[in-house]
Amino acid sequence: MDLRQHIRNIPDFPEPGILFRDITPLLQHPGAFAHAVDGIARRFSSVEFDAIVGVESRGFVFAAPLAYQLQIPLIPVRKEGKLPFETNSITYALEYGSDTVEVHVDAIDKGQSILIVDDLLATGGTARATAALVERCGGRVAGVGVVIELETLGGRRALEGYRVESLVAY
Amino acid sequence: MDLRQHIRNIPDFPEPGILFRDITPLLQHPGAFAHAVDGIARRFSSVEFDAIVGVESRGFVFAAPLAYQLQIPLIPVRKEGKLPFETNSITYALEYGSDTVEVHVDAIDKGQSILIVDDLLATGGTARATAALVERCGGRVAGVGVVIELETLGGRRALEGYRVESLVAY
Repeated sequence: MDLRQHIRNIPDFPEPGILFRDITPLLQHPGAFAHAVDGIARRFSSVEFDAIVGVESRGFVFAAPLAYQLQIPLIPVRKEGKLPFETNSITYALEYGSDTVEVHVDAIDKGQSILIVDDLLATGGTARATAALVERCGGRVAGVGVVIELETLGGRRALEGYRVESLVAY
Repeated sequence: MDLRQHIRNIPDFPEPGILFRDITPLLQHPGAFAHAVDGIARRFSSVEFDAIVGVESRGFVFAAPLAYQLQIPLIPVRKEGKLPFETNSITYALEYGSDTVEVHVDAIDKGQSILIVDDLLATGGTARATAALVERCGGRVAGVGVVIELETLGGRRALEGYRVESLVAY
């Protein structure tokens, strides 16, 4: 199955000059959605991991069924101020300004092997901060699995040293 | 299984006087997470529905595995400005101010029967707006399924006329 057929191109979103890859048609096609979820699992079938980190909020859409299907813990990583308990956090630079990702302090066990799942890899800023957050909590990063990779934005370089798997590359 | 054992109470979040019901321990317990996802499906097993609407962003965590498991479409309802394509939207009043929920104009087919899934039912404002949005798009609401219901906040009354199912009530 070619997942590209279920990804819609939206010019000038969220701002002029950006071509947004819209996954909502994929979500509405059960075969394509299952293909994406199962595809991430398959790419990491030779890797051992104990839990899945899902990155807010489109990452939840793929991380949650993967954790459900594999019967392993799902750990949400969210933007600042969304998680109610005590958190560890990492702030990272954006083109303009900065952003912060957080995880509960009791979410990751020492030595636990974590697969990070998101919908999209662009510059890799969020994924790299999430990987650093996992390690700060004492976890190990088994890899980063995404549905879509925007190759020209250099996310894979930003994640050097980590195994990165994407299902569709543009 | 008593899901309450996997829900953590956080006093004074997000503001003083609010007792927040934290589902992250539930997500980290694969048996409890599966019990919640399968529990919503079971509550609506006698009802026909064609697709699942997940409400951003904790709703995605339960709606996505449910759609994956049942092999039916997943339709994201999001806050204003997040969806990239043309949207239908409904704005609803909060205690202070207002909020807006949106769905893509091509997400729901005329006559399609929709199960709305979220993590929590409180005052019912978001769920009622989502139900109205489904109907504005020509869909029918098969029901509203949530993990947690805060009974004293009157969400069920706000959703009168709709079938509402919750797995845990406080």
